[in-house]
Amino acid sequence: MKTVAIVGASGYVGGELLRLLLMHPEVEVKVATSQQHAGEYVFKAHPNLKGFTSMRFSMDTPEEAASKVDIVFMAVPHGSSIEHVPEMSEMGVKIVDMSADFRFRNQADYPVWYGWEHPAPDLLQKFVYGMPELHRKELKSARFISVPGCIASSSIYSIAPLAKAGFLDGVVVIDAKIGSSGSGNKPSMATHFSERYNSVRIYSPSGHRHIGEIEQELSIISGTKVKVTMSAHSINMVRGILTTSSVFVEREPKIQNIWNAYRTMYGEEPFVRFIMDPSGVYKYPDPKLVVGSNFIDLGFAIDRHVKRIVAIGSIDNLIKGAAGNAIQSMNIMEGFDEKEGLMMSPMRLV
Amino acid sequence: MKTVAIVGASGYVGGELLRLLLMHPEVEVKVATSQQHAGEYVFKAHPNLKGFTSMRFSMDTPEEAASKVDIVFMAVPHGSSIEHVPEMSEMGVKIVDMSADFRFRNQADYPVWYGWEHPAPDLLQKFVYGMPELHRKELKSARFISVPGCIASSSIYSIAPLAKAGFLDGVVVIDAKIGSSGSGNKPSMATHFSERYNSVRIYSPSGHRHIGEIEQELSIISGTKVKVTMSAHSINMVRGILTTSSVFVEREPKIQNIWNAYRTMYGEEPFVRFIMDPSGVYKYPDPKLVVGSNFIDLGFAIDRHVKRIVAIGSIDNLIKGAAGNAIQSMNIMEGFDEKEGLMMSPMRLV
Amino acid sequence: MKTVAIVGASGYVGGELLRLLLMHPEVEVKVATSQQHAGEYVFKAHPNLKGFTSMRFSMDTPEEAASKVDIVFMAVPHGSSIEHVPEMSEMGVKIVDMSADFRFRNQADYPVWYGWEHPAPDLLQKFVYGMPELHRKELKSARFISVPGCIASSSIYSIAPLAKAGFLDGVVVIDAKIGSSGSGNKPSMATHFSERYNSVRIYSPSGHRHIGEIEQELSIISGTKVKVTMSAHSINMVRGILTTSSVFVEREPKIQNIWNAYRTMYGEEPFVRFIMDPSGVYKYPDPKLVVGSNFIDLGFAIDRHVKRIVAIGSIDNLIKGAAGNAIQSMNIMEGFDEKEGLMMSPMRLV
Amino acid sequence: MKTVAIVGASGYVGGELLRLLLMHPEVEVKVATSQQHAGEYVFKAHPNLKGFTSMRFSMDTPEEAASKVDIVFMAVPHGSSIEHVPEMSEMGVKIVDMSADFRFRNQADYPVWYGWEHPAPDLLQKFVYGMPELHRKELKSARFISVPGCIASSSIYSIAPLAKAGFLDGVVVIDAKIGSSGSGNKPSMATHFSERYNSVRIYSPSGHRHIGEIEQELSIISGTKVKVTMSAHSINMVRGILTTSSVFVEREPKIQNIWNAYRTMYGEEPFVRFIMDPSGVYKYPDPKLVVGSNFIDLGFAIDRHVKRIVAIGSIDNLIKGAAGNAIQSMNIMEGFDEKEGLMMSPMRLV
Repeated sequence: MKTVAIVGASGYVGGELLRLLLMHPEVEVKVATSQQHAGEYVFKAHPNLKGFTSMRFSMDTPEEAASKVDIVFMAVPHGSSIEHVPEMSEMGVKIVDMSADFRFRNQADYPVWYGWEHPAPDLLQKFVYGMPELHRKELKSARFISVPGCIASSSIYSIAPLAKAGFLDGVVVIDAKIGSSGSGNKPSMATHFSERYNSVRIYSPSGHRHIGEIEQELSIISGTKVKVTMSAHSINMVRGILTTSSVFVEREPKIQNIWNAYRTMYGEEPFVRFIMDPSGVYKYPDPKLVVGSNFIDLGFAIDRHVKRIVAIGSIDNLIKGAAGNAIQSMNIMEGFDEKEGLMMSPMRLV
Repeated sequence: MKTVAIVGASGYVGGELLRLLLMHPEVEVKVATSQQHAGEYVFKAHPNLKGFTSMRFSMDTPEEAASKVDIVFMAVPHGSSIEHVPEMSEMGVKIVDMSADFRFRNQADYPVWYGWEHPAPDLLQKFVYGMPELHRKELKSARFISVPGCIASSSIYSIAPLAKAGFLDGVVVIDAKIGSSGSGNKPSMATHFSERYNSVRIYSPSGHRHIGEIEQELSIISGTKVKVTMSAHSINMVRGILTTSSVFVEREPKIQNIWNAYRTMYGEEPFVRFIMDPSGVYKYPDPKLVVGSNFIDLGFAIDRHVKRIVAIGSIDNLIKGAAGNAIQSMNIMEGFDEKEGLMMSPMRLV
Repeated sequence: MKTVAIVGASGYVGGELLRLLLMHPEVEVKVATSQQHAGEYVFKAHPNLKGFTSMRFSMDTPEEAASKVDIVFMAVPHGSSIEHVPEMSEMGVKIVDMSADFRFRNQADYPVWYGWEHPAPDLLQKFVYGMPELHRKELKSARFISVPGCIASSSIYSIAPLAKAGFLDGVVVIDAKIGSSGSGNKPSMATHFSERYNSVRIYSPSGHRHIGEIEQELSIISGTKVKVTMSAHSINMVRGILTTSSVFVEREPKIQNIWNAYRTMYGEEPFVRFIMDPSGVYKYPDPKLVVGSNFIDLGFAIDRHVKRIVAIGSIDNLIKGAAGNAIQSMNIMEGFDEKEGLMMSPMRLV
Repeated sequence: MKTVAIVGASGYVGGELLRLLLMHPEVEVKVATSQQHAGEYVFKAHPNLKGFTSMRFSMDTPEEAASKVDIVFMAVPHGSSIEHVPEMSEMGVKIVDMSADFRFRNQADYPVWYGWEHPAPDLLQKFVYGMPELHRKELKSARFISVPGCIASSSIYSIAPLAKAGFLDGVVVIDAKIGSSGSGNKPSMATHFSERYNSVRIYSPSGHRHIGEIEQELSIISGTKVKVTMSAHSINMVRGILTTSSVFVEREPKIQNIWNAYRTMYGEEPFVRFIMDPSGVYKYPDPKLVVGSNFIDLGFAIDRHVKRIVAIGSIDNLIKGAAGNAIQSMNIMEGFDEKEGLMMSPMRLV
């Protein structure tokens, strides 16, 4: 039994970590911090958890939290982890960071994608990118984990097999659709229900910060420098991501070669499913099929008109795109059964 | 380890039973029948279950299914159970019926609410109404269980404490709001997305068939003949029920007496929560807080203007309103831990 | 051609007045004030209006606005109109007030429903309640109009014929369902999309302030003191109201008598429709059928189980529940064709 | 005053034509045919129109309808117009065809995109593609109009200025998001509310038939053979389209040159708006801003990471994507004011 703390537990990602870790048989949640809600019951901020816990938010600093447990989950905004992790990393505690502050291997990517110089570049090499299916071996000996961005997760999972198999002959163009939970719990006019309902908002036509992570991982996998771009849209739902990625190829591939690429990489993975059903209602991955679960659903199509492979991925952004990958990575790091605490079935209907 | 069959496993209620029973540690799902999908993988009809099971639908008759297992769940339309249950009841199998065919204790209620004479009135006394919090003792020795209707569940749970405490001085008026999953999986113009989206449809302004069950149970609890009416609405969501019930009282009650009524009845219940938070976003029960779980959330308000208690209940219609109550009732009948297989936390956001 | 000003034109009701009045052939919008957006193009706050107008918000005080036009629409919060109207009422301008500050005929209702004493009770008698179908004659000679509350509108329209015909034998119980636009444009955690989506929120189980208006109008119509109560719910949509009202009767009425009551009152009304189609998808009024229009759709059902008439009404809360009734009332006051500027057809699908 | 017939008036496109033409001051709708609903009031199939018309559906054949009016609108499925139009084209009636049967100039495109040989290739040259902003001059002397596909409309409008200005240096990749109304009014499991709600369905990852039209028009405008591909998604709404198009350029363009391209083409157009507001909630086009109107909203962004222009377009698929373009084209053909019957403002909120 390991003890864990969640720093920033009143946000949506923190709340999802709390929900899943409270039910995890191998860990005990000892600390859940919230500056805003310190002293309150956690079910005040997360009323879904009423009946599950009588825990309260603490006002511990990240360092205080770290001093009390075996593993700290940092569910704080980008730029905030970096203020605490360097000190915490000296304390013997293991760290699972949900922010972007340790996702890049190369410190030069920070000015490009986040606009600031990384103040602790040496630490970057000590973090493992928390994508279990691609970094399982490193995770086994990791002490520090940096959990991928949500859109990055769906994108990398769906394109990685093509990268590995050498299908990436040009720029990869990703179109991402995401629910509102991806933009956090801070109210604004843009997230006001009357404005947000029924809208299709292209909030990032270009320059999305997850592009950096995606290029990093696909370049590692393919062994060449991969160029990626993305347009990201908020759509009329709360949870879920669908990424539709255009992979341009010089020669039209055989469908079985693509299947082989996916099967080789993911054939034994417990949380990867292929949704390819030409006769059903759900012919390809759809957020509706994964919400509430730790699955990444994958599919693809071949576009003969322009020599393009369409790689499709879908996840619950708060689970496989955040808390689920974090816990799965922790399970590997700790030597637990990798599936522990994560085998929720998605609902038939949401 | 008991073996179970689900008859009618391709519908929404059948699918939810399947999903929950596949994860239940004390039972093994041996048979899942579907006339329409016989021979297909269950994940073809329920793609959410991909990765959980490689089971196929069988074409067994209900009687054949009954001959192979310890417990049969009948997830078939009203009027269909009655065609099979009399024979099955002689076979030694235990039966959990999701239809309305055995919900009334009094055969005279069938012509009134369903328009047909009950062909096996003797069987009615052998069925226990599958509402664990109200019939736990009878369920322990039950062999046949009749699971309440979904709107009836929310209504009865929320009004029962008031009935028990003697607060029902007049007609009870229920306003029900329910998601689309309550009307099943058969496409029609009325359920066509373009027509159904954003609509608020009063599909039953009066005469809803669940009224009969509600009167039956409230009359039992209060010890007097209770009169109930209801208007039922389909609203813009898939899962969930909210019932808002007007209970008229002759004298304005003290709030602490109402609290006492609820606490006395449900204080120790694992699946009953009180949602009463004057300062939060969720001041009263809301389907958003229970979707995906087996909780019934309860709350109330006092209306001083007209001497009325407003009793509020909310459930996931497919879980606490159907499959969850069925499994909880089975757990009691079988002597399992009552919570087994049902302690899913609702999600923070749906 | 009359000139008009809209005070508080950046809110949702103000924006709807602006949209409709910009297209009205008999008026010219000269002033649209906004404290927050003064100086900006109106299409900055109301981007739907891009291409219709190059008008800007002014920072005029209500009194300044009143000095420049023939008619002022006050689209300001409750308690704000009362600070300006007394002075404005001396200036010769006509006033259409959207707030609740002049809706009651009886000053004693203000402490009961709004918690404050009315500072200008003499003015109350000079205002006409802006419900054209019930107060057409008074509106013809009005100078000051007080536009009904949105839920009050749907409720009064649907119950008035029954009140007139003597069917109100007991308390009237209204269940109201309303979209998010009814709660204005101020962001908060309660209206944050991730929280508000898919929720069914009973925001006022009892004591809703519109009850006062409804009782006032139904009492006038019926000639007796009518007692009303209400539970009001926010549901998963932006525009629209459905009210389901339980009218208890001592003797079960004949259906033709109810039809007569509705036809007598509304038979010739251009903006009242009866939606009663036993064979169609839309059997009763549904917000989906009125959104974008000035219609009030009405229907009813008889409940033989408890001697109850269910009176159903549906409107677009921003049009027939606010801006539409305001303009229709103004049309009457000014001697324009009553339908001018208001004959938009609702869309087939929203 | 011209007389018109709508063939296929009970479908969603037919219903929208009916709604708009009933309010058009220059035309009289004499015939609205429906095989399924012949003899019924049109408001039975289109209950939104109750109060606007007491017209009934006729069972006229298309040829019979054509014999009674000046202009026929064919709102029938692809492959059905072609069975009637050749004969009708000899009858002196003008024809506005909503199907795809006469959209291509080149008969060789039919086998490629629709799988059949065109039986009346000579007629293809007599049809004008009903996109007023691009074919206004030809429409003035047209007798036969072929209205563009809905996704094609949004795509062509948004990319055409770039094509004209010579910015198309490679394959154009379109990502389309569309509401459910685009798939018609026939119920199925795929459009069943419980399945379709909250889903993001990539229904056409490649090979969408509108690609043919888009390539045709962009090639005409640019003077070179343009290659286009598309992935099309159904999302959680009823009306509206957003297209996000990736236009790859060899040299990064200056932003003012792109603005010039758009302004040159559309600067005076009454139904084209630019939505480019870096500080607002609606920074780019969004279906929420156009629903209910005949606007095409346009915007763009420059992607410096990969030399890409992102061209964004949004329309109401049933109006600017169908009935609106049809009527605007008819207005030009008939010499009416081009805006007649089409200047509806979109609502502030939908």
